Amino acid sequence: VTSSPDFWVRIETPQGARHAHLKGDDVVPIEGSIFEEWRPAGDPLPLKEARLLAPVIPPTFYACGINYKGHWQTAAAEFGLDPDKTWPRTPEIGYRSQGAIIGPGQAIVLPSDVPENVQVEAELAVVIGRRASKVRAEDALDHVFGYTICNDVSARGWQFTDRTFWRSKNADTFKPLGPWIRRGVDLDRLVTRVSVNGELRESFPTARMIFSVAEWIEAITRYATLVPGDVIIMGTDGHCPAIVAGDVVSITIDGIGTLENPVLQESTS
Amino acid sequence: VTSSPDFWVRIETPQGARHAHLKGDDVVPIEGSIFEEWRPAGDPLPLKEARLLAPVIPPTFYACGINYKGHWQTAAAEFGLDPDKTWPRTPEIGYRSQGAIIGPGQAIVLPSDVPENVQVEAELAVVIGRRASKVRAEDALDHVFGYTICNDVSARGWQFTDRTFWRSKNADTFKPLGPWIRRGVDLDRLVTRVSVNGELRESFPTARMIFSVAEWIEAITRYATLVPGDVIIMGTDGHCPAIVAGDVVSITIDGIGTLENPVLQESTS
Repeated sequence: VTSSPDFWVRIETPQGARHAHLKGDDVVPIEGSIFEEWRPAGDPLPLKEARLLAPVIPPTFYACGINYKGHWQTAAAEFGLDPDKTWPRTPEIGYRSQGAIIGPGQAIVLPSDVPENVQVEAELAVVIGRRASKVRAEDALDHVFGYTICNDVSARGWQFTDRTFWRSKNADTFKPLGPWIRRGVDLDRLVTRVSVNGELRESFPTARMIFSVAEWIEAITRYATLVPGDVIIMGTDGHCPAIVAGDVVSITIDGIGTLENPVLQESTS
Repeated sequence: VTSSPDFWVRIETPQGARHAHLKGDDVVPIEGSIFEEWRPAGDPLPLKEARLLAPVIPPTFYACGINYKGHWQTAAAEFGLDPDKTWPRTPEIGYRSQGAIIGPGQAIVLPSDVPENVQVEAELAVVIGRRASKVRAEDALDHVFGYTICNDVSARGWQFTDRTFWRSKNADTFKPLGPWIRRGVDLDRLVTRVSVNGELRESFPTARMIFSVAEWIEAITRYATLVPGDVIIMGTDGHCPAIVAGDVVSITIDGIGTLENPVLQESTS
């Protein structure tokens, strides 16, 4: 595992989706499982010619929800709550839909009837590499394969009226994931930055979470087994920029990469 | 598609999980996709010697929540609501965790610290066979491959205190699914029956839903594309029997089959 390459992408090939690792300016396709055994398969191609897909499709797609106090300042106000008294005291995980996932560069398509105020939530995404059941926090990071980035696109108009997050957070294209999985990063040094149309709109220290990655893994695996490929998105901080059709939104986490997606409006034809 | 066998199972083989169809008292393993192209592969074996797995692992696992007025009579009382004024007026889908799925005959394992009152929710499970986006209700059933049964095991003590359904409904083993997928059933004639230790505890007409299967598919696919293998569990009616370690719970839907699972207590070693 220690000899595994640092960057893993998933690309479209004539034979279907394939994992590949970065080597210089090229990507090297592989056969097998990135989490178990693999071997190079097929010719390397230049990274800039590869069509990148979401780097993993999780069996179960977990979401931490509120996990930064700064974001809760804003969210609590929406609910009419006192943020200092109501931030989460226990880690209770939620879910997102695999069907909503898109890759880097693919378009976020706003449904024709979506209410105003669709927002970006810039989130660290944890990719599980080893089965994890009843893991203690001090051992939890041994079960992490690497990290990527998720834009937890949220239609606030629906989020606050619907009983579930089905269309507010899980409409088609609402879960951009990528651009790749980075291994061997030190979370404590990372900063998350959100830009819309090239203008920096928010930044925050990635690791300033209410519960850490390790604490979430301990909590989840008390009751639910995590398996290779499962993804946990870690919540966002600060203010969430709104996006409209025509925008390009990018999320950068230092040391991981940049996830960039254009925003389109669904045609009503 | 019309020539596809009526009953599909998924079985454990030395080569891993395989789909197979029923033929008399035998199961016939196949290669390929039950939703697209497949061919027989390997020798038939007697059904009673096959180890059945959950018949499908959905890419996205949808749950309808409250979808029968009888069940809402009970649930509303728990929330202190007037059931006649508060039953769902719009179909808003939720999610379950793939990681919680087990097959027929496998044990539901109660976590060592689960509060009292773990209940059975007997549910029809719809298996999608064809990609479905913006489908009208009148065309929706063309996208259904077949039906199976789900036990949406629910730890009420956690359900009413946690912010999400993570451990109340998605703890390991809490989503028995099976025993097989049945094609070509007429939902209007079906009855769902729940037994604990061989004693009938509840029964209800399967189709007496607030929103029909076709209406749910129309609602979901307005915003989210369903893909082959996706599963939608349709909610339950009436009273939900409680289960404790040592019980055997079975759910029968006429024309589909019987999903039976023993209940164990997690060891605290």
